[in-house]
Amino acid sequence: MSDHTSTPSAAAAGLRGQSAGETALCTVGQTGSGLRYRGYDLEDLADNAAFEEVAYLLLKGKLPNREELAAYIARLKSLRGLPDALKAVLEQIPASAHPMDVMRTGCSMLGNLETEASFDEQADQADRMLAVFPSIINYWYRFSHDGVRIETETDDDSIGAHFLHLLHGEAPSELHAAVMNTSLILYAEHEFNASTFTARVCASTLSDLHSCVTAAIGSLRGPLHGGANEAAMAMIESWRSPEEAEREILGMLERREKIMGFGHAIYRERDPRNAIIKEWSRKLADDVGDTQLYAVSERVESVMWREKKLFCNADFFHASAYHFMGIPTKLFTPIFVCSRLTGWAAHVFEQRANNRIIRPSADYTGPEHCDWQPIDQRD
Amino acid sequence: MSDHTSTPSAAAAGLRGQSAGETALCTVGQTGSGLRYRGYDLEDLADNAAFEEVAYLLLKGKLPNREELAAYIARLKSLRGLPDALKAVLEQIPASAHPMDVMRTGCSMLGNLETEASFDEQADQADRMLAVFPSIINYWYRFSHDGVRIETETDDDSIGAHFLHLLHGEAPSELHAAVMNTSLILYAEHEFNASTFTARVCASTLSDLHSCVTAAIGSLRGPLHGGANEAAMAMIESWRSPEEAEREILGMLERREKIMGFGHAIYRERDPRNAIIKEWSRKLADDVGDTQLYAVSERVESVMWREKKLFCNADFFHASAYHFMGIPTKLFTPIFVCSRLTGWAAHVFEQRANNRIIRPSADYTGPEHCDWQPIDQRD
Repeated sequence: MSDHTSTPSAAAAGLRGQSAGETALCTVGQTGSGLRYRGYDLEDLADNAAFEEVAYLLLKGKLPNREELAAYIARLKSLRGLPDALKAVLEQIPASAHPMDVMRTGCSMLGNLETEASFDEQADQADRMLAVFPSIINYWYRFSHDGVRIETETDDDSIGAHFLHLLHGEAPSELHAAVMNTSLILYAEHEFNASTFTARVCASTLSDLHSCVTAAIGSLRGPLHGGANEAAMAMIESWRSPEEAEREILGMLERREKIMGFGHAIYRERDPRNAIIKEWSRKLADDVGDTQLYAVSERVESVMWREKKLFCNADFFHASAYHFMGIPTKLFTPIFVCSRLTGWAAHVFEQRANNRIIRPSADYTGPEHCDWQPIDQRD
Repeated sequence: MSDHTSTPSAAAAGLRGQSAGETALCTVGQTGSGLRYRGYDLEDLADNAAFEEVAYLLLKGKLPNREELAAYIARLKSLRGLPDALKAVLEQIPASAHPMDVMRTGCSMLGNLETEASFDEQADQADRMLAVFPSIINYWYRFSHDGVRIETETDDDSIGAHFLHLLHGEAPSELHAAVMNTSLILYAEHEFNASTFTARVCASTLSDLHSCVTAAIGSLRGPLHGGANEAAMAMIESWRSPEEAEREILGMLERREKIMGFGHAIYRERDPRNAIIKEWSRKLADDVGDTQLYAVSERVESVMWREKKLFCNADFFHASAYHFMGIPTKLFTPIFVCSRLTGWAAHVFEQRANNRIIRPSADYTGPEHCDWQPIDQRD
């Protein structure tokens, strides 16, 4: 560590524990395991709410009444169409592209076509993104992988069912729609995580919403942030039995390899999202007659707890749940985007309402002063 | 302010004065007015160096010798071509788009086509962006505004001359090439400003370089960060004489309107970049026979100092300098991108070399706990 400034420890620790602003959106890890959106327990929301209801809560500040929710769902349904120029852009992106690069580019391109001209538009712009993001990723996926230009407007009321409909070309079962609904609720908001903080730093320059969300997508793309459910899937799908999984996990632990989907920077006791998605994964396993993947996942969970006292985070059972619904692994993190967009946008609104540009200092570790050297005198 | 946590003051102040990491790239404002890149005084670099030499210093850690610089310039010249798919995307963006949205989208699209597969590629990816960014913005500008598809490869050695060549369709004068060279040096790096900090937060998730730079472009787009030279231009171009300028400025000050291009978050005495670009602006005014814009600019400078003890920052005389070279005002901030890219990329390399994910805390200001309300019981 440098000894140049007053608080090198927070800097070295990635600002862990250093407050970087105010929020009324979320508390994470109170009493070790709590998660609340605007004061509501995550468990209550996951058990009772539609994702659109949670989006309304985050973006507009209160739970909607029946008329408000119906109007909001109808409005989002009306905003699913892609502009022709955005389709043309998505058609230029090869099948080999990283799907998060597609999301980032799709969001950025949308900003050229439907620019946020003033902050008065912020609520409308967020709604538009919420409605159209599933269209962006699935239009690209189906065009680049299957060669078809899909119609991105469906009759599905929920964003979760709509997503699966675009991906599979048919309306999903009630079970699948329910799982997607819950999954989108679980990932919607999580305080000052790195992608949300990216969005707030961007917002602090008073930039537009598309810039803030594009920036956040770029951060979520990083393997230390989003993508843990993809990595967990890649791991568990190779194991054919709980016994094989246990042997392999013990070997990975011995070799000190990183095992994705476990532990958390904030939660100390458990991740409250795990029990919820685990239960849905179990139901999906029953539904498809799985005898392997869920059992493997459970064994990994118990071995990790027994050996390391590490608990599953939100991502681990998401892997098997998404897999049972026929979602390709590479689309897992884009679904995270379709959900977390609500939290990002709500944080941008908050930052704008009480803004000062976020411009920290740094500890300087370079040379104090160097004399200019003419080019022929250099090594 | 909230009273929930230990350090609300740094949070409320946008982390001003709070160290958020280490850097060996730059010191800003030492003794009130200094600016050094890796220990070299900005004045020495501006007087003696090619921008490519400064880019090499920032990205590779030392000033190049003659052979290294020649090889680097030749390499950058060879990387100016646009992939067909990127051209197709740029052609989809309307002339009415915000040019920073075009830069953001162009960079993001490039990431789909030339994805950074591992950090071993980071130096090559940064060089490619440095070479191709002028092609991206000028290809779009000329296609959308003039209906021509320009060839983006020129014989100009310098990035500054190349930029003007693409924009105007002919190689620039020596004077214009020299001004662009200096301008690119002045804007190259500035420690943990908001766009650079955005890039570092994104990098801290171990995301790819295109995500980091795309995110930084989004932050620079904000009117509190980039764009001050555009705003200064819009202001001064409406005034026909120093007397009119003085009257108008005094009126703006009386009405407490914000006057762009003055003062700075870090510098206390003066912005060292101002004297340098001001001198070039004066030479350009002589060269074009201007009798108005430069005189107006000087009067604004003296009135602001006399009335408010506010000094010009880097942006103010950039406005007239760029204008004298025939650069449309809307392209001012994209030139800033072509320059600051070097600082952004160097900071990403630094973050990766000693990384911990940047994940601060927040002061919670919302309700502690809300009971779930069934929808029919809500207002």
